[in-house]
Formats: sequence, C-alpha cells, structure tokens
Amino acid sequence: MTTTVCVPDAGFADRLRAVAPEAEVVVWDGHAEPPPGLDRVSVVVPPYPKAGWTAEQFTRLPAAAVLQVLSAGTEAWLPLAPPGLTICNGRGVHGSSTAELAVTGLLSHWHALPALAEQQRAHRWEPVQAETAWGRHVVVVGAGDIARTVAAALQVFGARTTLCGRTARDGVAAVADLPELCATADALVLAVPLDDATRGLVDAALLARLPGSAVVVNVARGPIVDTAALLAELVSGRLRAVLDVTDPEPLPADHPLWAAPGLVLTPHVGGGAVGWRDRAGQLVADQVCRWLDGRPLENVVRPGTATTSDAPTGGGTR
Amino acid sequence: MTTTVCVPDAGFADRLRAVAPEAEVVVWDGHAEPPPGLDRVSVVVPPYPKAGWTAEQFTRLPAAAVLQVLSAGTEAWLPLAPPGLTICNGRGVHGSSTAELAVTGLLSHWHALPALAEQQRAHRWEPVQAETAWGRHVVVVGAGDIARTVAAALQVFGARTTLCGRTARDGVAAVADLPELCATADALVLAVPLDDATRGLVDAALLARLPGSAVVVNVARGPIVDTAALLAELVSGRLRAVLDVTDPEPLPADHPLWAAPGLVLTPHVGGGAVGWRDRAGQLVADQVCRWLDGRPLENVVRPGTATTSDAPTGGGTR
Repeated sequence: MTTTVCVPDAGFADRLRAVAPEAEVVVWDGHAEPPPGLDRVSVVVPPYPKAGWTAEQFTRLPAAAVLQVLSAGTEAWLPLAPPGLTICNGRGVHGSSTAELAVTGLLSHWHALPALAEQQRAHRWEPVQAETAWGRHVVVVGAGDIARTVAAALQVFGARTTLCGRTARDGVAAVADLPELCATADALVLAVPLDDATRGLVDAALLARLPGSAVVVNVARGPIVDTAALLAELVSGRLRAVLDVTDPEPLPADHPLWAAPGLVLTPHVGGGAVGWRDRAGQLVADQVCRWLDGRPLENVVRPGTATTSDAPTGGGTR
Repeated sequence: MTTTVCVPDAGFADRLRAVAPEAEVVVWDGHAEPPPGLDRVSVVVPPYPKAGWTAEQFTRLPAAAVLQVLSAGTEAWLPLAPPGLTICNGRGVHGSSTAELAVTGLLSHWHALPALAEQQRAHRWEPVQAETAWGRHVVVVGAGDIARTVAAALQVFGARTTLCGRTARDGVAAVADLPELCATADALVLAVPLDDATRGLVDAALLARLPGSAVVVNVARGPIVDTAALLAELVSGRLRAVLDVTDPEPLPADHPLWAAPGLVLTPHVGGGAVGWRDRAGQLVADQVCRWLDGRPLENVVRPGTATTSDAPTGGGTR
C-alpha cells in the first residue's frame, strides 16, 4: 500500500523523496491548480505561514488522515480541519529561535540594553548597574519545547524557574497556581498555545499580582494577554514587557503600544528563523517514516480516527 | 594564632564577622586614614572597582600573604602586588551577569533586535527573518567561569561551542588553533584574562579568518582586540560585534567606534550587576574560612610564598 503525502513546495518534496522513496509525493500549496493525486493524499503538510487556507482546501483531500502543520501553534487549524484528521504541530521547528528571542528580550531589560543603546547613539559612556538572571524567579507558562528551552537557558545563568502547565505534574505547576506564583515572579514568560483556557489568561488581576519591575514576556499569541491591562501597567511604569506577538496583529501604526515605555516590541519574528525549512523538512520526513512503518506519530495535538497508518505494523525498517 | 583580614567597607566586615568570628577584621579602602592593625593583616580584599590603588597601599600591609580581588580579571593588580603575595581572582562574582551580557548581545544581532528597535520607534510592523543559535558554531576564547557559562547557555539553544584555552586539554582547544577554528566560527566570544598572551590576540589577521557576518563579542578587556582592525571590518560591513569593553576605555565621545555599523556597544557593565556584593561577600567568607582552616585557597591566579595559612592544618571545622 502506498502512502501519498501532500507538501507545500518542491523543496519539501525533494527532501521527502530522498528519505522515503516509497511514498508518493504531491506538491500543492492549497492555492495553485489542484494537481492529480490529491484524492489519494493521507498526510497533509500545509504551507508555513498558513497563508489563507480555509476549510475549502480540505474538501480536495477526502482521504486525509493526518495534518502535519509547520507552526508551533495549531489554534488556527483546529476549526478548519475535519474532525477525523489527526493534527500534529511543528514542535522543534521554531522552538529554539522563539526561546532565544524570549530569553534575549528578557535579558535585554535586565541589562538595560535599550537605555544603553540610547547612550551609544549619543556617544555617552555612562556605566549603569545591570540586573542579572542570577537568583531571579522566572515563571514560564507552558511546558513544551519552547517553555523548557527558556527555562533551561535561564537556569544556566542561575535563575530559578517554574514551569506552569494545564495541570500540575512532576516538575510542572498548574496554571491555577499562577496568581500565587506571580507574587514572587521577577518575570512571567508566556510560551503556551492559544486556546479557550489561555485566551485572556494574563488579565489585569494577574498582572497586579506581579511585583514592581517584573517583566512580562509574550512569545506565544497576542490574545493570551489583555492588551489594555498590560498597556496600563507599562504606562504607569510599574511593569516591563517583551512582546513578539500582539492583539491585534499586525499592530496598527497608531496603536498606543508602540510608544509604551519599558517595552521591547518585535513583529512576530520568534519563529521562521534561518534554518526553519531544514528543521521542518526533517520533521516531515520523520513523521512520514513513522506513518509508513506503522509507528505512532509524534507531536499529536488532536488525535483523529487514525494515529498510525493502516499499513502492517511491527515491521518498522527505520 | 589570629588572622587579620582587611576589607574595603563595613558591609563586607559585618558579613565576614558573622561567618568567621575568630578572624580580626580591619576596614580600609586604601584611601581613608589607615586604621590600627593594618600591620597584622594577612588577607587583603581591596575595593571593587579598583579605585586608584597603587603599590603604595601595599607598603601599609607588610604582613599581607593573600590578595583576594573582587574583579574577574587581575591584570591591573599583578604589577602592583609584592611578589610574595598570593593573588586570587573574583571568579563567580560577576560571571553570570557577564556571560548573560555576552549571550544577550550575540543573540540581539542574530534576532535583528537593533533593526527591530528602529521599527518600533517608527511604529512599523515588518517581520524580518531572524537568525538563530541553532546549529551555529561559536568559538569562546577562555575556559573559566564566564566562558563555560556562555557555552552552556548557547548549547541549550542548539549551538555547537568550542572553548579555547592557553593550552589544549580535555574539552578545550588551544589558542594556537584559533586561526583554524575561526574559519568556521559564526561567533567569536572573548572571555579570557588580559595578559601578554592575549593582548592584541584578535588582530587583523585573525579577524580576516572569520566568515562574513560573524559576530565578535568582547566582554573581557578592550586591548585583547585590535580596535582599528575591528573598526575596519565593521565599517566595511563584513563583521558584526558586541563590545562591553574598549581600547581606550572609557571611549572618548569623538571615537569612530561609537557610530560603527553592526555594533552593540555597552560601557563595561558586564560585571557589578545587582547582587554582586552578596556573591563577593560569600567568596570572601569562604576564602577566609579556608585560610583559617589551613585548606587550599580557590581562584589562585598567582601563587605567592604561602597558599594556606600557617595555622595548624588538618583540623578544618568548616
């Protein structure tokens, strides 16, 4: 039995053919003229970024069993994909660069880099006393790839970190404990998917729990934070923030967030860093090999009716 | 036998008395009226920063056996301290914050933060493709506290790191291999003491070995880098840099380095971060306890005529 895989461009196709020659590969980005073979596709890899896919594209893919997206978050795909489809996220593809951005933004505040950049522009050599991660408490909302990378890097610098997941488990606190955890947090880093439980999670009440000078870092999705509430904390000078994502996004030129004090604002550049295509290609190849071998898929966010292929199992050759 | 310790201010004195009540503590910063007891001092802790100590202060301390400085580098003390004195550096006191600054500066370049800060000022949402530490090769000159912390943090983000010490040893390459290592380096981080072997180490020839777009990070001492050679590479746009130290220092307002492109320049703020006094106080207390117990000192940079006290050894009570 042949497995047919739909990938968004020729680069992914070449890489996949080299690794899994027994798979049939169809190239379709969801917008070009539909090529032959779409009706046989069981594994769908849509473009990254999402680029306007709607439920309509899935009607062309009646045999699809797996949707392997290339973003870390899947919230945009959940309402579109037919319920029988197993949805896998792009864990690892963007994780390192997103975690780097979170850590860099946070440490930029602690080392006063925005103020020192002003001094550089003014040719002024005036040492200031920096803050440091050493001994700080950083609460990371999330327990996945990005969250764990952020925590591991900050631990190298002597910070104490607390991961916070949907439910408490070994080494992970519960989101329900956030109000208490925030009371001692020097930084609150958001690296969690957007869903009904996290939308608006960081509201005025939670922000008010944070001590003065704490830094809020959002590299997840804009709507996890109540923008107006955070803006008020920034304008008052009580809190600082790093935002790679905003609500709304893109941020309109006249939005007051642009000029808020104590804010490092970047235009959703945490993912998609140089090399993401290599990492994505590797993930797709690994997943297709698992599927061909009848092994369980990784990164499953929502199981569908099939989580391994219908191919005979147990004889994995990879 | 009593040990007398000279510390630079009352804060250090209080901390030391609490931990080592059997030590006699004298407070002198080298500038105030010399207090009684200086002639009995065996362990000297001078102020940080160095604040104008010369060889003259040591003439007031005829019984001194140990100089425990509170900076990471000791190059300014070596010519001043009488040859019989054991010199110990402040390893660990500033290490984390200096390493943080090196990593933050490097990642700032890779994530285009200076350019994105410009966009923020202009209220412009224009995503750019970031670079990432993932898969990069970072050569770190140094094999101490700061160098190892830099390497460990970058490894968390998936970078490959090479430490480079005076001589090759397990897990450490030799400085002599730098020209070869630089040929594949995406970044060259300097975290090494200034001495005859490192002065001018990063000259035009070594810089020329680095591939285009490589980032030179100096958090050590300015004279390790040939300023004119680096400036030429920056002005040509071939290399990028992060400098927390310069030559000369402080950098005069009319120096061309201020306006060089591709440069993150900070005014020697890597050390002395919030909390440094706690870490320094702990180091001084630990060293004095070792001395009182007749155990070997740590962080010895230059052994003198005594490296443990003359007190009876073997009966360490700590």
